[in-house]
Amino acid sequence: MPKRVDHTERRTQLAEAAVRAIDDRGLEAVRLVDVAKAANLTTGAVVHYLSSKDDVLMAAFDQVGLRSVVRMVETRGQDVVDRAMAYLPHDAETAREWRVFLQFWGRGVSDPAFRAKHRDGYEAISAALARELEAAGAAQPDVVADATIAIVDGIAVRVAMEPEAWPLERMRRTLAAALVPLFTANGQTGRT
Amino acid sequence: MPKRVDHTERRTQLAEAAVRAIDDRGLEAVRLVDVAKAANLTTGAVVHYLSSKDDVLMAAFDQVGLRSVVRMVETRGQDVVDRAMAYLPHDAETAREWRVFLQFWGRGVSDPAFRAKHRDGYEAISAALARELEAAGAAQPDVVADATIAIVDGIAVRVAMEPEAWPLERMRRTLAAALVPLFTANGQTGRT
Repeated sequence: MPKRVDHTERRTQLAEAAVRAIDDRGLEAVRLVDVAKAANLTTGAVVHYLSSKDDVLMAAFDQVGLRSVVRMVETRGQDVVDRAMAYLPHDAETAREWRVFLQFWGRGVSDPAFRAKHRDGYEAISAALARELEAAGAAQPDVVADATIAIVDGIAVRVAMEPEAWPLERMRRTLAAALVPLFTANGQTGRT
Repeated sequence: MPKRVDHTERRTQLAEAAVRAIDDRGLEAVRLVDVAKAANLTTGAVVHYLSSKDDVLMAAFDQVGLRSVVRMVETRGQDVVDRAMAYLPHDAETAREWRVFLQFWGRGVSDPAFRAKHRDGYEAISAALARELEAAGAAQPDVVADATIAIVDGIAVRVAMEPEAWPLERMRRTLAAALVPLFTANGQTGRT
């Protein structure tokens, strides 16, 4: 079914263009025409795949969430600090994702649809990490998963908001200070 | 100079009304008239003290930041988990402050004035906490301060976005799991 594959690919292409357009113009100001330009397509083509601005934003949100899941799989077996670094804004692409993600948080506090998507994404990541920790024999895997995610998010906010004050070395030092004692206290060496 | 005191009081009253109005209507949608209604004043009175919508937003941001500083002073000497709980969205007022604060993050990624205010606020809190830790003989006080703030922020985001999934007990358990090993590893018992 080649047509179906094309459809999925085109939606992904549009979602990635939407992430770039949101980062350039802001979540509230961005228009369908900005997404079309970022995707090198006509506005008509955007509307064909994603019928409204809210659909475009949701597709962008899904795209950022998907990257998180991919990152989780790709970094499995790595040391917990290396793994957490992959989630932080450590290069141009992850910095852009976080700037966009922070705008989704801002929107989510007053928009139930965005909040629900946020909750579902976090529940999935949190449950997957807790399962890994449990399989590795960690004490209180659910709590360690919650704490680990909070540490990454809390540092990511600082880096996204104050990039010039947070070089890679400060990210890594803060992650290590918070994650290593947490993992050690729960019977883990740092590899998950 | 009673007139001057009145002026400061009126600005504080307006900033508090702005926080409520932003929470009710959202940072982008809120209008001066909403702030006036929340403050039981005329729009003219609002404009007299805060000349534009951006001034109102900045005053609200300052007000939320001020609460953070007050909380830091008020909780000095408490156990670190109790102290961190005071920062989390643990009651109606702190939940509202976080919902508003998350919208300022969203705005900050694309607005240098908001980002600068964010950076200044975090630098002040971080430096104050590091000084306390240093005075208490903690190892690497700057890093412990960064990690502590990240842990609180990361948990606060989850609570603000998923309040029904984060009762007080889950907040406290996650804080304890992350903060107690961090403080112990750096020669602290948990009191700061």
